[in-house]
Amino acid sequence: MNLREYLAQQQKLVDAELGRLAPPESTPPATIHRAMRYSLFAGGKRIRPILCMEAAHAVSRDADGVVSCACSLELIHTYSLIHDDLPALDNDDYRRGKLTNHKVFGEAMAILAGDSLLTLAFQVLAQLQLADDRKTRLIEELSTASGTVAGMIGGQVADLEGEGQPPEPQLLETIHRAKTGALLRASLRMGAIYAGATTEEYDALSCYGEHMGLAFQIVDDILDVEESSEALGKTAGKDAAQHKITFPAVYGLETSHQMAKDECARAHAVLEPFGDRAARLHELADHIVLRKS
Amino acid sequence: MNLREYLAQQQKLVDAELGRLAPPESTPPATIHRAMRYSLFAGGKRIRPILCMEAAHAVSRDADGVVSCACSLELIHTYSLIHDDLPALDNDDYRRGKLTNHKVFGEAMAILAGDSLLTLAFQVLAQLQLADDRKTRLIEELSTASGTVAGMIGGQVADLEGEGQPPEPQLLETIHRAKTGALLRASLRMGAIYAGATTEEYDALSCYGEHMGLAFQIVDDILDVEESSEALGKTAGKDAAQHKITFPAVYGLETSHQMAKDECARAHAVLEPFGDRAARLHELADHIVLRKS
Repeated sequence: MNLREYLAQQQKLVDAELGRLAPPESTPPATIHRAMRYSLFAGGKRIRPILCMEAAHAVSRDADGVVSCACSLELIHTYSLIHDDLPALDNDDYRRGKLTNHKVFGEAMAILAGDSLLTLAFQVLAQLQLADDRKTRLIEELSTASGTVAGMIGGQVADLEGEGQPPEPQLLETIHRAKTGALLRASLRMGAIYAGATTEEYDALSCYGEHMGLAFQIVDDILDVEESSEALGKTAGKDAAQHKITFPAVYGLETSHQMAKDECARAHAVLEPFGDRAARLHELADHIVLRKS
Repeated sequence: MNLREYLAQQQKLVDAELGRLAPPESTPPATIHRAMRYSLFAGGKRIRPILCMEAAHAVSRDADGVVSCACSLELIHTYSLIHDDLPALDNDDYRRGKLTNHKVFGEAMAILAGDSLLTLAFQVLAQLQLADDRKTRLIEELSTASGTVAGMIGGQVADLEGEGQPPEPQLLETIHRAKTGALLRASLRMGAIYAGATTEEYDALSCYGEHMGLAFQIVDDILDVEESSEALGKTAGKDAAQHKITFPAVYGLETSHQMAKDECARAHAVLEPFGDRAARLHELADHIVLRKS
């Protein structure tokens, strides 16, 4: 199976499981469940769950149930997008080419839909068919990666506060290690924990996640400059318009491209001990750096 | 120690633990930690954590560490107040006599502060010094009680959608069992789980929580009609102004008073098997029904 077929297959797997985990639209109160499902099925690429599942498979051939665990990452990611798009935050009308949650359901419901997805993520982990010590480690990992201290929310706040500030390399790194890096790294770590990784395996996958997280964000910043809104499915050029601190703003486009390649090379290197079991993780690293949207 | 002294002592215990669990204001990004702490220490009565701790003590004399577990309930309660007060939802400027979170920190930060407290609640439970099977049961309990299906968010949505609808007893019950009832019941259940309750003890405390939850909400609705904004520390008479479905609206004031007393009597009755160990829970039931704010 080539990478494109593999990605389509994995996305289908994740979509089916998310469909099972999110309450059906027929369950009252229906509006909130419609709002949750609208954003869950708005065309996400499922990068985080796929990385989580691949990390588990790199550790153990016996990790099929990992898809529910992997979905908790997509629940957190989706909630953060809904809240990020709100008028009080990024004020975006479109996301992945579709109207944002609050444009369809109103602000009140969008706030509550975000809260619901965040809450559901932890409920899903608590209800996994898995040893309790692994479940509590997974919950600790996800809550820390999503939180304020070097986690996702911390990165969002630093990003908001960084708007209009001088483009300092140190601030840039702090923002992105937290804002996107923490959850991407957690994706790998959670796959490792689910599958019962040794400390060495956990550390290697965590390290891969860190390099991929950085590469992912550099590419995101580059795409915002180089690609059209149509290609991205969201408003291009917003970073510059909002005076955000980005990799192209700090290092220029050429150096940014090189940095993404360097991070990708480091990600490949740390996978070495896994041999063939990490074949897909190698492919995913290249895919993330070469993507166009 | 009389009830007033006991409540003051327990509030102090909860405040100290919340102070330890929430990241310090000096930890970057400082703004979000200031916003979280502002609402955490805005004069909450700590009813939910106190009920949780008393449930644990009714089950076992050896449950001192329960205070961290109890604080997770206050983290959830506080996040829900911050989001509820937002302009898109109840649009309240004051809460407990102080400016609401978004009036002080702005809407963006208030949304993120709510998200952070919600996330922190699960991190706190995952990091308890407790057997892993109890931790996962606690997380399952809290996430279900806070969620959309018969949980707190579900109740908020039903409440929003119920505005202006005919005051039907059935709808009223559905809303309140979920909106305030689920989290109050979870307070008792979580104390029971923490302390290793038997199924019978768990069920009895759960039942007490259900009656107290209903009594609490009936009294809340009555106070909104009978008391001044000054006494409540929030805008009085809002329910009627927003055409909310309330107990006084459905049953009238006199019957509502009687219903609160009946629920309280049922709460007392189910505590019988605990004997003296439930002395404080008996006092708390009366206290909640007789409160004036």
